[in-house]
Amino acid sequence: PETTTKVQSVPHFKEKYFSQILDHFNFNNMGNGTFNQRYLITDEFWDRGVGPIFFYTGNEGDIWEFALNSGFIWETAGLQGALVIFAEHRYYGKSLPFGEKSFRIPEIGLLTVEQALADYAVMITELKKQLDATECPVIVFGGSYGGMLSVYMRLRYPNIVAGALAASAPILSTAGLGDSRQFFRDVTADFENYNPSCRDAVQEAFQQLENLAQHEDYGHIRSAFTLCKTPGSSQDIHQLKGLLRNAFTLMAMLDYPYSTHFMGNMPANPVKVACDIMLSGKNLLSALRDTVGILLHTTTALTRMFKLHSKCFLLFVLKACTEIEMCFESNNVTDMFPPMPFTEQDRVQYCTRKWGVVPRPGWLKTQFWGDALSTASNIIFSNGDLDPWANGGVRKSISSSLIAVNIPEGAHHLDLRGSNIADPVSVRDARRKEAEIIAKWVKMESKKMF
Amino acid sequence: PETTTKVQSVPHFKEKYFSQILDHFNFNNMGNGTFNQRYLITDEFWDRGVGPIFFYTGNEGDIWEFALNSGFIWETAGLQGALVIFAEHRYYGKSLPFGEKSFRIPEIGLLTVEQALADYAVMITELKKQLDATECPVIVFGGSYGGMLSVYMRLRYPNIVAGALAASAPILSTAGLGDSRQFFRDVTADFENYNPSCRDAVQEAFQQLENLAQHEDYGHIRSAFTLCKTPGSSQDIHQLKGLLRNAFTLMAMLDYPYSTHFMGNMPANPVKVACDIMLSGKNLLSALRDTVGILLHTTTALTRMFKLHSKCFLLFVLKACTEIEMCFESNNVTDMFPPMPFTEQDRVQYCTRKWGVVPRPGWLKTQFWGDALSTASNIIFSNGDLDPWANGGVRKSISSSLIAVNIPEGAHHLDLRGSNIADPVSVRDARRKEAEIIAKWVKMESKKMF
Repeated sequence: PETTTKVQSVPHFKEKYFSQILDHFNFNNMGNGTFNQRYLITDEFWDRGVGPIFFYTGNEGDIWEFALNSGFIWETAGLQGALVIFAEHRYYGKSLPFGEKSFRIPEIGLLTVEQALADYAVMITELKKQLDATECPVIVFGGSYGGMLSVYMRLRYPNIVAGALAASAPILSTAGLGDSRQFFRDVTADFENYNPSCRDAVQEAFQQLENLAQHEDYGHIRSAFTLCKTPGSSQDIHQLKGLLRNAFTLMAMLDYPYSTHFMGNMPANPVKVACDIMLSGKNLLSALRDTVGILLHTTTALTRMFKLHSKCFLLFVLKACTEIEMCFESNNVTDMFPPMPFTEQDRVQYCTRKWGVVPRPGWLKTQFWGDALSTASNIIFSNGDLDPWANGGVRKSISSSLIAVNIPEGAHHLDLRGSNIADPVSVRDARRKEAEIIAKWVKMESKKMF
Repeated sequence: PETTTKVQSVPHFKEKYFSQILDHFNFNNMGNGTFNQRYLITDEFWDRGVGPIFFYTGNEGDIWEFALNSGFIWETAGLQGALVIFAEHRYYGKSLPFGEKSFRIPEIGLLTVEQALADYAVMITELKKQLDATECPVIVFGGSYGGMLSVYMRLRYPNIVAGALAASAPILSTAGLGDSRQFFRDVTADFENYNPSCRDAVQEAFQQLENLAQHEDYGHIRSAFTLCKTPGSSQDIHQLKGLLRNAFTLMAMLDYPYSTHFMGNMPANPVKVACDIMLSGKNLLSALRDTVGILLHTTTALTRMFKLHSKCFLLFVLKACTEIEMCFESNNVTDMFPPMPFTEQDRVQYCTRKWGVVPRPGWLKTQFWGDALSTASNIIFSNGDLDPWANGGVRKSISSSLIAVNIPEGAHHLDLRGSNIADPVSVRDARRKEAEIIAKWVKMESKKMF
C-alpha cells in the first residue's frame, strides 16, 4: 500500500551558463582559461534587489537532479522572497571543463573541493553584480557532499555567504574522524530497528553467499542471483558483495515515507519493503536477490544499477582518492554485511594504481578544520536518524549559531525535499526551525548592509 | 650624531628543510611532487611540549633577513616559553620549487598566496607531530606581506592557528580597497611633517627633472645624477623617476630611530637625514641625487640599488600581477613625486605582456574577505603612523578580538624588531600590549586543549 505522493509544482528554472575560471590557483594562461559552468536560476519568488539569494552548492551529479529534489529551498524562497540558484559542480552534468576529455589525466586534476568552492565564490560575486543584487544576503544550501560544500563555503567565504544549511553532511567521517565501522553499523541498525529478524536474515544470507564463494560454487551463485554471466574469480565475488551491500545502503539512506526517483527508483519505506521480502519465507539467497531488486523493480537490477551510476560513482571515487576520506568497513560483527575491510592503506594502493593520484590523509581536516569548528558561525547541521551518514556529521549544537537539527524519522536530507503529505512531524518541525533560523540570518546580514 | 645601536643577541637557529607538496590544489602526480622548503627553528626558549609555537609566515625574501630583523618574536618567546619557527616563502631564498628553473612559465604558476598558506598549514601540522607538540597553541607572526599571510592564516586555518600578529599588513589597499593616491600622499606626509620646506624642495627637484626630460636634455640628467650611462628614451626616464620615488618610499617605510641593514643600509632617522640634505642649499638636483644616495652611502647608488633588489622585486611584481592589487599612483598634487599614474588597466597590460599572466581584479577580496572581517577573531593589526602602508591596513579595532594597535612614532613593522635603546615609548607600549594579548590567546587555547 504505497503512500500517495503529492506532485510538487516545480518553479520555472532558467538554465544558464557561467564563464568560469578553469584553475583558480594558477595564474598562467592555461589557468586563466574558462569553461561553461551550468546553473539554474529562478526569480519568480524574488523581492528584487532586496530579498536574499538561496544558492545550492551542487554536488556530484546533474544539477537538475538536485533542483528537482530540493523543494524545501523554493518553498522557503516563496515565503522569504528569495532568488534561487542551483549551481552545477565542475566535472558533472554539463559542466565539463574539458568536454569529453575532462576525465583523463592530467585534465581530471582540476576536480578538487577547493576549485569547486572557488567556482561558487566567483559565481556568486559576479552574478550579484549582474543582477544588481550586491546588497542581498546569500544563504547556501546543500545535501550530503553538497552540504559539506555549504559548510566549507561558510568557513572559507563568510564575506560572501551569510549562512549555510548543511543537510546530512558527513563532515567529520569524511575528514577521517570517527569510527570506520560506524557507517555500516548504522545501515544495519535501520533494518534491525524495523525488525531484528530482518537483520538476522540478511546476515545469514550473506553468510550463505560467503560459503558458496569459499567453495567456488560460482554456478550456484549465478543462478541464485540471476546474473547474466557466471562469476569467474574472487574479484567478481568481491564486486558482487559490494553491489549487494550498496543496495542496502541506498535503501537505508533513501528510506523516505513516499516513493522517490532520486538516485534511482525507490518505493516508499524501502527498508520495510526490503524486510518484508527478506522475511517472506523464501530461500534466503533468493530473498536477498529480490530485496536488492527493489531498487529497479527488476531482478536484473544488479548490473544495470551499476551501469546507471557508473560515471558519477567513478568521479566520486576519484574525489575520495584525493581529499575525501571514506574508509568505511563492514565486518559481519558490528553489521550484517560480508567482511570487507577498507583501510587507509587500501585506499592509497587503489587510488595510486587505478588513478595515478595519491590520497593525502589529513588534508580535508587541515583545509576545512575537522571538528575544530568553534570559530565558525551561522551553520545548520541537519541530520536524520535513519541516515547512515548522520553519525559522521555534527549531531550536537556547538554554539548558538552552529546548530544541530536532528530528525528522528528522517532519512538522507529529507528536510531538503519539498513538503509531502506523508512527511513525519519531525521533518516538518525541522523545516520550520531551519526556515526561522535562515530568516534571522538574512535579517542580521541585511541590517549590516543597509 | 647616530644613535648607538644595541647589538641584539640572536638565538641559535637551526636551518632545516621540510619536504613540501608542490601543488596543494592538484592531485595528479606532478602535484604530488615535493620540494625542499627552508625553515629556521629554535627551541632554546621552549617549555617543551607545553609552551606555544611562534611561527613567522615568511614573506618575499630570504628567511634569514626576516629572522634577524624580528627580535620581538624571540624576546617574547623567551618570556612565554615558546618554540620559534621562521618559515621561508616558496620561490624565495633557498625554497625554490624547481631550483633555478622556478622562474619560468609555467613553473612560476605555483607562486600564489593560497599555495604559500597551504605550505604553512601543512608544515605546522606536520612539525607539531614530529615535535610531540600537537597540543601546543600556534601563534603566527608576520610583517608587511608576511603580516597579510598571518591574517589569512587565521582566517583560513583557525583550526591550526590560535591567533595572528599582523604588523604593518596592508590588507585593504592590496585588496583594491581605498584610495590609490593614499600611499604616496603618506610618503610625502612623512617628509612634510619633518619640515614642510623639505616636501617643497623634493617636489621642485622632481619638477626640474621633468623639465629636463621634456626637453630631452638627457646629458644634463646624466651628469646631475652621476649615472653610468646617458638615458636614451622616455622609458629610461620613467624608470629613473620610479627609482628615485622608490628611494623616498624606502626612507619613509624604514624611518627607524637607529640605523638598520634591512632591505638595504639605512641610517638612523633617514627622513631627517634626507631632508637635511635636501635643504642644505645645494642645487636641487644634486641634493636629490645625494638624498637617494643615502641608501647605499654612495652616489652611484641608483643602479646598484636596483640590481640588489631585482630578484625579489621582480617576484613581488609577479605576485602583484596575479592576486595582490597595487595600483598606487603619484600625481605631484597630493604628493611630491612626478605624476606616475597606474591604473588597473596599466596593470593588466603590463602583466599580460611581461609575464603572460592575467591579473584578476577582486580575487584577493573574494578569497580573503576584504574588509568584511567581522566573523574573524584573534588578530592584532599593528601599524606605525610613519609607515605609508599603514593606512592601507586596519586602523580601528573591529571587535574585542580584532584589535588595531597604532604606533604614532612607528615606521614599517617597527614593533616586530627587537628592543632598542632608541625606541620611542609608543613602540614599547605596543609591544607590551601585543605580548599580553598573545599570552591571553595562548592561555585560552591551552584551556580548550588540556
